[in-house]
Formats: sequence, structure tokens, C-alpha cells
Amino acid sequence: MRYSKLFSKTIKSVADVDSLNAKFLTQGGFIHREMAGVYTYLPLGLKVLRKIEQIIREEIDAVDGQEVLMPGLAPKENWAATGRWDTLDVLFRLKGAGDKDYALNPTAEEIVTPLVQNYVFSYKDLPCAVYQIQNKFRNEARAKSGILRGREFSMKDLYSFHRDQQDLDRYYKVVKEAYYRIYKRLGFDPELTYLTYASGGAFSKYSHEFQIVSPVGEDHLYACEKCRVAVNREILDDQKTCPECGNAKLVEKKGIEVGNIFKLGTKFTDAFKFRYADEAGKLQPVIMGCYGIGPSRIMGTLVELMSDEKGVRWPKSVTPYQIHLLTLGNDDASRLEAEKLYEALREAGISALFDDRDERAGAKFADSELIGIPLRLVVSSRTLEKQSVEWKDRSAKDAEIVKIDGLIKKIQNFYS
Amino acid sequence: MRYSKLFSKTIKSVADVDSLNAKFLTQGGFIHREMAGVYTYLPLGLKVLRKIEQIIREEIDAVDGQEVLMPGLAPKENWAATGRWDTLDVLFRLKGAGDKDYALNPTAEEIVTPLVQNYVFSYKDLPCAVYQIQNKFRNEARAKSGILRGREFSMKDLYSFHRDQQDLDRYYKVVKEAYYRIYKRLGFDPELTYLTYASGGAFSKYSHEFQIVSPVGEDHLYACEKCRVAVNREILDDQKTCPECGNAKLVEKKGIEVGNIFKLGTKFTDAFKFRYADEAGKLQPVIMGCYGIGPSRIMGTLVELMSDEKGVRWPKSVTPYQIHLLTLGNDDASRLEAEKLYEALREAGISALFDDRDERAGAKFADSELIGIPLRLVVSSRTLEKQSVEWKDRSAKDAEIVKIDGLIKKIQNFYS
Repeated sequence: MRYSKLFSKTIKSVADVDSLNAKFLTQGGFIHREMAGVYTYLPLGLKVLRKIEQIIREEIDAVDGQEVLMPGLAPKENWAATGRWDTLDVLFRLKGAGDKDYALNPTAEEIVTPLVQNYVFSYKDLPCAVYQIQNKFRNEARAKSGILRGREFSMKDLYSFHRDQQDLDRYYKVVKEAYYRIYKRLGFDPELTYLTYASGGAFSKYSHEFQIVSPVGEDHLYACEKCRVAVNREILDDQKTCPECGNAKLVEKKGIEVGNIFKLGTKFTDAFKFRYADEAGKLQPVIMGCYGIGPSRIMGTLVELMSDEKGVRWPKSVTPYQIHLLTLGNDDASRLEAEKLYEALREAGISALFDDRDERAGAKFADSELIGIPLRLVVSSRTLEKQSVEWKDRSAKDAEIVKIDGLIKKIQNFYS
Repeated sequence: MRYSKLFSKTIKSVADVDSLNAKFLTQGGFIHREMAGVYTYLPLGLKVLRKIEQIIREEIDAVDGQEVLMPGLAPKENWAATGRWDTLDVLFRLKGAGDKDYALNPTAEEIVTPLVQNYVFSYKDLPCAVYQIQNKFRNEARAKSGILRGREFSMKDLYSFHRDQQDLDRYYKVVKEAYYRIYKRLGFDPELTYLTYASGGAFSKYSHEFQIVSPVGEDHLYACEKCRVAVNREILDDQKTCPECGNAKLVEKKGIEVGNIFKLGTKFTDAFKFRYADEAGKLQPVIMGCYGIGPSRIMGTLVELMSDEKGVRWPKSVTPYQIHLLTLGNDDASRLEAEKLYEALREAGISALFDDRDERAGAKFADSELIGIPLRLVVSSRTLEKQSVEWKDRSAKDAEIVKIDGLIKKIQNFYS
């Protein structure tokens, strides 16, 4: 993509931002705020969001999740069936034609349970796991923290259905392992990814959060550094030691929650009278689990954790483009060589954002640091004297001079 | 995918359907109705929808559309700025925290215009074209025709911005040609795709619809068969002859609308005071066009037009899987050979739905015809006597016997 053609440009400064992720993502041209907690994803931001979603999709497919797409709108009846029409604060309620009551789904237990019930009747149909990646709506009293907590946001929600608790426990572990793989692929440091015991709400004793430990986190954790497991402050009264090894020396840390998994038991299946017939033909309760990760929240978290004072530093796996290519100066030789390189990158299947603007060097460098693509290549009359380009890893302190001959191979190695 | 593992099964009969597409798509396990005009896309249906969206995405990218993702929720202010908060019947209106008024976007002129205004200031930034593929919401008094006209539906909406009418006219033609390519790739007969002059509403004299001519269509057209152009009945009083060649012998036909393009002029850019600076620094009005295609509506239209009495017949380009593989009987040799073939297809990158159920032949055949994958392969003890499979093109009358040796190559040719 030629930067000169990209309609969404970087912005020098933004007023009225509530977080680092909102600041850098807005300035870099990744997102645009429509109202508090509601954002448009611009071309660069949509590329990042889609890459995050695709990593999650691949890992959930690999644990036999079947992807569907449920609607945002639901009739009141679904939410009334579980009582949450009246009790869920964040539920958007609206009126449609004929004075009908609708909800905008903030989660999908009330939709997926009767959906799966429509097709699952016997023990032969279980277990089954259904997920979607879809926009959810929450009527938050105060939306804050940029895309970390919005009124409309992307969510992967997986729901599993089982014949007994033992089978739910088995699959719950399978998904837990898939989540660790997802966070690793997304670029989070496995050393900082803590499985965190949290409140199970009305469903079970505990749920589990995945927390990335960081001084900028807003959640308070008590961590067992041996097991890499933590206890969320909200349940510290009930659980004062490491739930896995009994270690009583828990260390206080801060974290950002990047996922949440629940054993729901029969709360929702009971509400919809969803039963299955066992081998003897006897009707039995269906046991349910649910597993969430928010791609937009992940995107915001990556910015919170991995930025420096100049801007974003995207992990290689979710960068909008692989190369930020730019020319310095406006001489014909540099321009021509940069065009040749841009074409060579395309032929090699390496994606590039090509800053081809007639703009001063300082502005181009500042934009590239703000946008945060992992690898920047600069073509100028000075580098061309050595048949080279300037190679700058976004996370390295210094740039190096690299011969154009063999460059493609070196880029492929960088990304392999 | 093993059919035995797919949670969404075929359904023998459905009550209370309003159209052929709702009937076959529900029975085949493609969609599930949540309420009138609101559907879940099940695994098979989501695959079709995503393939349709991807074809549209590729062709819009090819005409320099830049993909973004706008939200479904919008503040009242955007819709009040153009006056449509009060006048648009199908606008869902709702209240959020703090008694704020929100709309659910049924289209996105009110969102995209101030969005692009945020980044476009000068003639150097024009033209620019921005699109999204996203769920839209319409508060229809009466939702009908399955996924042809819903309360929530998938829509690709492209918006273009220009410095003058001439440049809009140029780009409008470019998109028109892209639309013809899209319909051809989606499997519509180009001979039956009619550019249709329709009302331009408040924006301009005419807009253009793309209509697929069919006896099951609900729109009334007056067609010039020479130009493959039609006039929608709604403007027949103003336009009694072919708008392209003047032919007065228009033939009455029925059609299904599968796309709609508009020249909007300055209606929306004026409302948001969106101007650009020309070469002399003088502020000038921005001229706008918009271009819609609904992927879910396309999916329903394909079913309406291409089904037979037994079920769906998907075009090769959007089929959920390339092969419907099934075994007959339950003998070990057939099962083993089918498993080998399933694995060989996977290795060759050919997607297959493998009906591995222990189910009678009649039911398996009926399901495969209902689901409508273009190519069915049957493995049975009878075909194995000849080292063959039964090859059945969904659109052909008879099956043929084809040697397993060379089968992959023959499938690749079928799909090339």
C-alpha cells in the first residue's frame, strides 16, 4: 500500500483520550472514535484486528470449535427465559416494529443454547462446541480505556456442551491449552501470562481469567510465581493460597485481563429445558462451558504493553504490514530504487506500507515509529552509494546498513 | 468436515417459512431463524457467506476501495445532521446510559462522511473510496423473503469522494464494471444481469440497480434486450424508452435486485460541511457516490434462482465444500477406501464434506441434494469392484463411474 493513497493519515495530537491505546491508535490512523466506547477500524487497524481474529480462529478450529455467526439483535423472549432481561445492567433494550422488545446481545448464552438445542438430542450428538467472532454491545455507564472496554467491541465467544461434568472438565483443559497457544502467537510473553482464579459468578465457584502481568494493568492479582497462577483480588478472601500448589507466599501484581473461561454447569441449559437422551433413552441435563477472548481488547492490550514513547511496536504476527518502506530525499535514483524494491517485495509475497510522500525525513521517521511496523527499510542516495538500504528493527536501538542483494532472504528470515 | 461431527443437521420439514430460500437454507442446515428477518449463519451457511464476501472484497479492493469497519451503533447527532433521524422509517432508535439517544446504522452515509472528512482536506487527498462489509439493521415493519430482506443483514457498502462530477462519473463507471465482474464470479448468468434505471431518490434523477431477470423475481422491469438494460416500473412514467439506445420496444420482465449504486452529489457532504481546498486554496464541495451489495441477499438470491425441487445447487465459486463424499453400506472395504479418499482430498487442498454416518442410502442422497454441493462422490462395494467411485454433478441428470486413479486431477479440472 502506498501511504500517499491511504486515506487515513497520522494525526499530530489528539484531545480527550482516556488511555495510551486510544492515543497511539488514533494518532497512528488505526482507529477513529465515533463516540465514547465506539470506534471505527481504519484500514491499518482493520488489518491488525483481522490478523488477531484469524489466529484465534485457527486455534479454536483446532480444538473442534465450529464457527457460526449469530445476530446482534435478539427478541426479548431469549433474555427473559433466563431472567437476565431484567437483571443485566449492560443490556441494550430497544423497540422494533409492532412495539416488539429487542435486545442487543452483549454475550450469546441466551442465543446459542436454544440454537444448539435445535440440533442436539442424544448422547451421540455430544460433545459439541460452537463459536463466533462477532461484535457485541454493552450499555456501559462509562466507557473508558479506549478499545479495552467499549460499548461495541469484537468478541470471540465459544460455547461447549457436554453429557457430564467430567467431559466438560476434559474440554475445559483443552481450551485452556489453546488459549496459551493463542497468547503466545499474538506476541504476549508466556512468562507474563498468568492463569488467574476469579469469581465464578452464579455459575460455579471459580472462573479463570488469563491475565498479562504488567505495571500498567488495572486488575490486582496475587501471584504464585512458581506455578504462574494467580488469584484475583476479588476472591482473595476465599482463596488465600495458590490454588494449584498451596503456596502461601503470593506476590501482589497488576494485570490486564485478556480472556475469561467459565464452567456454566446447567444454568442456561436448565433455563431452556435443554436435555439429551442417554444410552437408555433417559433425559439428562446438558453441561455447558463458555470461553471468551476479545480481539479488539487484545489489540488495545498489545498497544498498552508494547509501546514506547514514540508509538506502537506491533508483534510480527499481527503487524498491519511487514515492511515500512520509505524514501528520503526526492532524487530520481532513490525513488526508482524504492519503487523497484516495493515491486520485489510484492513479488516475494511480503506486504509493505510504502511511504512515497514528498515529505521531510523527520516526519516520515516519526510516522513510522508511531505506526510501529516491526521492520523499517530506508532508501536514500547515501544508502545507494553502498548498494544498500537502512534496516531498522522497531525494537532495536540502532539501524544497520544492509546490501540490497540478499535483502528479500534476510526479510524472510526476520519473519520466519 | 465429517458430517457426523457437524452439529447443525438437515431438517426434514420446516413450518412457517416465507420463501424458497428460507425453506432450503433452513432445511439444509445453512441458517437458523432467530426471529422474523434475523438469522444465525450455521457452519455451512457461514462458509457460503464468507466466500461471497471475499469475492466482493477482492473486486472492490481491485478498484482501490479501502476497507474499514464502522460500528453498528451511532450517536443521534450523526443522523440528526442530515435530518434522517426524524424521517427514516427503518431506523432503529434506542437509549443508552445517561439517557443518550443512539441509532443502529441501516446504511453508513452519516458515519462515513464525517469519518473521511477527518482526513481529507485538499484536492491532493481526492478521489478516495472507502468500504466495509458489515451487518446493517433495518426496523422493517414486515420482514419477509427469508434472507432477501431482513432486519439484520450483511452489506458491503462502498462510498467514494470526488472533487467534481466528472471524476464521480468516471469512478461510477469503474465500479459498474466491477459489479458485473462480481456477479459473474458469484455464478449469475451475465445474459440475465440487467443494469436497471431506478429512482434516484432525493439525490439525483436516476440510480442504478443490478437485477437478475427471473420469473421468481418480485421487481417489475421493462427491458431493452439489445443493451441488456432495463427501466424499473417505478420510473416508467419518466422513462418510457431504453435510456441507452432509445429503443421503445421494452419487454416486461421480473427481476431480483442484487445491487444498487447511487450518485449522491453533495447531499451528505453539504450536511456535514465537508469541503476540500482546490489548487488555489478555495473551498469546494465534495461530490459523493455510494455502492451497495448485500452478501446475505446474494446468498438468498442464488438459492431462489438456482435450486431445483430437491434442494440447493451452489455455484462452484461459493459452495461450502467442493466435494460431498459419501459411503454406501457399512462394509469395511468401502469405509476404508472412503477414509483414504478423504485424506487424499485434504492433501490435495480440496475441501470435502464427508458423510460418514451409518445411515441409509436414501437419506444420504436426499441430504446431499438438499445441501447442493456441486460434486458428489460415492464409494460403495459396487464402485470398488471397478476401482472407481460414482461421480455425480449436482446439475447433471445422471451419475458416471470414474476410476479412483486420476480422480484428483479430474476434480481439479472440474473446479478450474
